Amino acid sequence: MKAVVCVMLKPDVLDPQGRAIQRACVTLGYDRVVDVRQGKVFEIELRTEDRATAEGLVRELCEKLLANGVIEDWRIERFAD
Amino acid sequence: MKAVVCVMLKPDVLDPQGRAIQRACVTLGYDRVVDVRQGKVFEIELRTEDRATAEGLVRELCEKLLANGVIEDWRIERFAD
Repeated sequence: MKAVVCVMLKPDVLDPQGRAIQRACVTLGYDRVVDVRQGKVFEIELRTEDRATAEGLVRELCEKLLANGVIEDWRIERFAD
Repeated sequence: MKAVVCVMLKPDVLDPQGRAIQRACVTLGYDRVVDVRQGKVFEIELRTEDRATAEGLVRELCEKLLANGVIEDWRIERFAD
């Protein structure tokens, strides 16, 4: 089973990289782009077919390894087979 | 309207960062983690409520700015209001 996990800076943490991309969009003429936030995505292949097991595992991994809880939020975007 | 876009290395491009994370998981005792690929996620806030307009805009941005078509694939993960 594959889990797709997104890790983003918390909304109140400045994201200079996202801001730079938003400005680049406007410079290229895409002035409908009003905000960009950049984060990390992890595609994690797990040796289990049980959704609950996978969810528990991914939760632990995010809390221990993949996200910095002080400045980042994480979410499971979806599971895939 | 907000678009969530994922940019990943193409499957046949080595991902040493993902590999390092996979090994770290195993070292921590999570031996059910068989593969990890790391990519970038962009949350793009667009000044439009039209889904087709947003989709066209995001497609152009990905091809011109957000992804390197030589080594990366991109996908629109979802739209949100």
